[in-house]
Amino acid sequence: MNNIQFEKRKSIEQVEESNELAPKFDSNGLIPVVTTDFSSGELLMQGYMNEEAFKKTISLGEAVYFSRSRNTLWHKGKTSGLTQKIKEIRIDDDQDCVWLRVDVKGGASCHVGYRSCFYRSIPLDNSSSKVVLKFEEKEKVFDPEEVYKGAPNPTKL
Amino acid sequence: MNNIQFEKRKSIEQVEESNELAPKFDSNGLIPVVTTDFSSGELLMQGYMNEEAFKKTISLGEAVYFSRSRNTLWHKGKTSGLTQKIKEIRIDDDQDCVWLRVDVKGGASCHVGYRSCFYRSIPLDNSSSKVVLKFEEKEKVFDPEEVYKGAPNPTKL
Repeated sequence: MNNIQFEKRKSIEQVEESNELAPKFDSNGLIPVVTTDFSSGELLMQGYMNEEAFKKTISLGEAVYFSRSRNTLWHKGKTSGLTQKIKEIRIDDDQDCVWLRVDVKGGASCHVGYRSCFYRSIPLDNSSSKVVLKFEEKEKVFDPEEVYKGAPNPTKL
Repeated sequence: MNNIQFEKRKSIEQVEESNELAPKFDSNGLIPVVTTDFSSGELLMQGYMNEEAFKKTISLGEAVYFSRSRNTLWHKGKTSGLTQKIKEIRIDDDQDCVWLRVDVKGGASCHVGYRSCFYRSIPLDNSSSKVVLKFEEKEKVFDPEEVYKGAPNPTKL
């Protein structure tokens, strides 16, 4: 699929009830993306795409994001080899969020080395005001020091 | 759990590798939230929380968002009855995204009336430049006209 066209947003009915793709990008030109594992349903990561990244994702069949920390197009897995093969793309009611259902080559999507970025839970049965996160993944799938040799950590404080 | 405290963000190691909850809110004071169905794993919606909404979600055990269109705290289901009971809360590596795993009373989470907000897919096998969305849910679970009588549609063009 080449030269993909997005429709202009004309009415609420068009956006919510029709079969026209008319995505809404925010004031920074970005749309949030939710990425889950196609087989397990597990949430792998949440990122962003600009218009170019969204069109590339559709035409390439692999996840292409826009990296806010590096301010550039980001073909996921280009460095690490852990590409995300698209099995299905969905868009939400008001077309301001994209859902990617993917197969991950290498089985990991998190730059810290875990399978999912969401490797910690917030306990609900705590009676204290201090929250102690629980690790839901016990072991890293890969060693980020090896895979991203010398690349700066994308996490911003 | 009352008077929940969030930690100050001190280092990448603290944020990524420790058990301290130190969430990052964006320049508007919001953090994106991904909500999936606990049983089916299906993505139901993507929303936002401010600090107060996040703390209320943890203490109440039901999803409380911040509505950007109405600029107010939004206890999901307060109007429609379709509350989201929290089964698990997770936070991502750099703690700038929250994952809620929920049971939905009434079985629907979308203001248009569908089970999930993501009721349409983008075909991948299309050779034309025009994208024709495919409806993945055939029937609405509820009639929004009945449930939200007279309330304005939150979708913004």
